[in-house]
Amino acid sequence: MAVIYERVALIGMGLIASSMAHAMRRHGLVAHIAGYARSAETRAAALEIGFADSVYQSAAEAVQGADLVVLAVPVGAMAEVAAEIAPHLKPGATVTDVGSVKQAVIEAVAPHIPEGVEFVPGHPLAGTEHSGPYSGFATLFENRWWLLTPLEGSAPAPVARLRDLLEALGAKVDELDPEHHDLVLAVVSHTPHLIAYTMVGVADHMHRVSKSEVIKYSASGFRDFTRIAASDPTMWRDVFLTNKAATLDILGRFTEELFVLQRAIRMGDGEQLHAYFTRTRDIRRGIIDAGQDTDAPDFGRIKRD
Amino acid sequence: MAVIYERVALIGMGLIASSMAHAMRRHGLVAHIAGYARSAETRAAALEIGFADSVYQSAAEAVQGADLVVLAVPVGAMAEVAAEIAPHLKPGATVTDVGSVKQAVIEAVAPHIPEGVEFVPGHPLAGTEHSGPYSGFATLFENRWWLLTPLEGSAPAPVARLRDLLEALGAKVDELDPEHHDLVLAVVSHTPHLIAYTMVGVADHMHRVSKSEVIKYSASGFRDFTRIAASDPTMWRDVFLTNKAATLDILGRFTEELFVLQRAIRMGDGEQLHAYFTRTRDIRRGIIDAGQDTDAPDFGRIKRD
Repeated sequence: MAVIYERVALIGMGLIASSMAHAMRRHGLVAHIAGYARSAETRAAALEIGFADSVYQSAAEAVQGADLVVLAVPVGAMAEVAAEIAPHLKPGATVTDVGSVKQAVIEAVAPHIPEGVEFVPGHPLAGTEHSGPYSGFATLFENRWWLLTPLEGSAPAPVARLRDLLEALGAKVDELDPEHHDLVLAVVSHTPHLIAYTMVGVADHMHRVSKSEVIKYSASGFRDFTRIAASDPTMWRDVFLTNKAATLDILGRFTEELFVLQRAIRMGDGEQLHAYFTRTRDIRRGIIDAGQDTDAPDFGRIKRD
Repeated sequence: MAVIYERVALIGMGLIASSMAHAMRRHGLVAHIAGYARSAETRAAALEIGFADSVYQSAAEAVQGADLVVLAVPVGAMAEVAAEIAPHLKPGATVTDVGSVKQAVIEAVAPHIPEGVEFVPGHPLAGTEHSGPYSGFATLFENRWWLLTPLEGSAPAPVARLRDLLEALGAKVDELDPEHHDLVLAVVSHTPHLIAYTMVGVADHMHRVSKSEVIKYSASGFRDFTRIAASDPTMWRDVFLTNKAATLDILGRFTEELFVLQRAIRMGDGEQLHAYFTRTRDIRRGIIDAGQDTDAPDFGRIKRD
C-alpha cells in the first residue's frame, strides 16, 4: 500500500501504539515512526523491538515535523501531554487519540490544539489483557471497530485521511457523537470491566474459600472475569474517573436488575429466571452472526482434538 | 486402556454425558453405553452420532444391568429420576451425577438409593456455552477438575473405581465436603454466571443504546459476558434455585464490594480504584500459572499470525 502519512509520532508506546506501529510498518503506510514514552524502559523497548524509527525524551520533541500525532497515553494524562505538544505541532498536522472515553478527552485536548491543526478523536475497540510495548502485534485491529468522534465543524479531508490509515490497519471505521460513544462504551466495556474487577475482588477477599481453591477451580465463568480484571490498572482507573456519569448510570441499572434476579432466587421463582436466561442467549447469537466473536466452544480455548 | 465398567447408563444425554460417552469410547473404558433422554430428538441424535450403543424410552429401562449410572439431568430433575430408577438398579452398581450443586443433589438422590448400591456424587468443572447431544466432544475433560463429594461412610472401592474412570477421561479428581463444594462453586461459577446474565440483560433493556450497537461494538469485555450468558437456561435456573444460600451470600458480598467501587468512582478516588485493579491482576497470574487458562492474549481468539 501507499504511504498515507510521511511521519507519525506515537505519544505513549503501550499495547495500542506498538500494535499500530507494527501494522503501519507491515503495510508500508508511513515513512517514519517517531515515539515518546515516559519510561526509559519503554523507549528502549521500542528501539529494541524496532517498531519505532526514533524515540525522544519528550513528547514535544517527538511531535516535531509529524503529519499524524497519536496520543496513546491514559485518559488522565491527555491534558498535560496536549498542552506540552501544542506549540510544537506542524501546521497541517492531524492529532488523534486512542482513549476509551471521548467527551473527557475532547475537553482535555481540544482547547490546546492550535489553528491549522486538526484534532480527530478516536477509539479502537481492540486490545487484550496484556499491556506495555512488548504486548503489541500487527493484527490487533483486523476486523475490529475503530470509532471516530470528529468535532463539530472539523474539516472532512483530515478525517478521511485518518480513516484511510485505520482501514489500512484492518479496522472498520464508524463515526459517533462523543456523548453517545461514552454511553455505548459504558454498556459494552466499562461497566463489564468494573463488574469483573469486583467479582475477582470478592473471591480474593473470601476467607472460607482459600485463594488456592479459587485459582484451582476457576474454570467455567470465573476465569473469564479474571482475564478482564487483569487489564491495565492505570488505564481503567482513568476510564472510570472520566466516564463517571455514564458508568454510574449503567451501574445503577445493573444493580436494579441484579436485585430483581436476586429476589427471584430468594423467592424460588424459577420461571422468571428461566425466561431471563433464555432472552440473553439471543444477544450472544447476534454477536456471533455479526462476526464479533467466535462460536467455537469456550472461545476455542479447548482443543477438540 | 482396560474396561473399567462393563455397562454404563447415561441418564440425560446433553453436553456432559455425550462428552463422557465420546471419551469412554475413544479410550475403550466401557463395553456398552446405554442412554436415556426425555426428548425423542436427543435419543435419535445419540444413535445417529453413535456415542450410545442403545437408547431407551425410560430411565428405568436404561439403568437395567448397568454397573455405572450417570445422572446427567438438570439438578431440579434429579429427585424424580432417582425415584424412578431406584427399583431397577443392579446390586453392586455405582450411581454418580454431574450436577453443579452437591448438597441439593444429595438430598434429592441419596434417600432413593437402595442398599447394595453406592451413590458417589460428582461434578466435572468442564463445559462450554453450547448444550445438547451434538455439543459433546471427547477432550472436554482433559486437564479439568472433577470434584467428588462422597457421602459419609461410603465404601472406598466404588469411589476408587469411579476415580479411575474419570482420570482415564483426562480429568484431575479431588474430593470435597458437599457444603464446601457449594460455597466454592458459588464463588468461581454460580455468582459470575448470574452477574454475566444480568449485565447482558441490562444491555438488552437499554433503549438509548440500540441492540445493534451493543452487538456491533461488543468487543472488549461484554462479549465474554455474553458467552457465559448463553449457557443452558434450565441448568442454570436449577443451580440458582438449589444453591440458594451460598449464591445469596456471595451476591451480598459482591454488591457491597461493588458499592465501594461505585462510591470511589463517584468521589473521584483514583487511588482506591488503582489499588483494587492492581490486586486483581495477581489472581489472573495464579490461574495461568496453575494451568487453568491460557496466557494467549484474548484467550488466543486473535490471530497473531
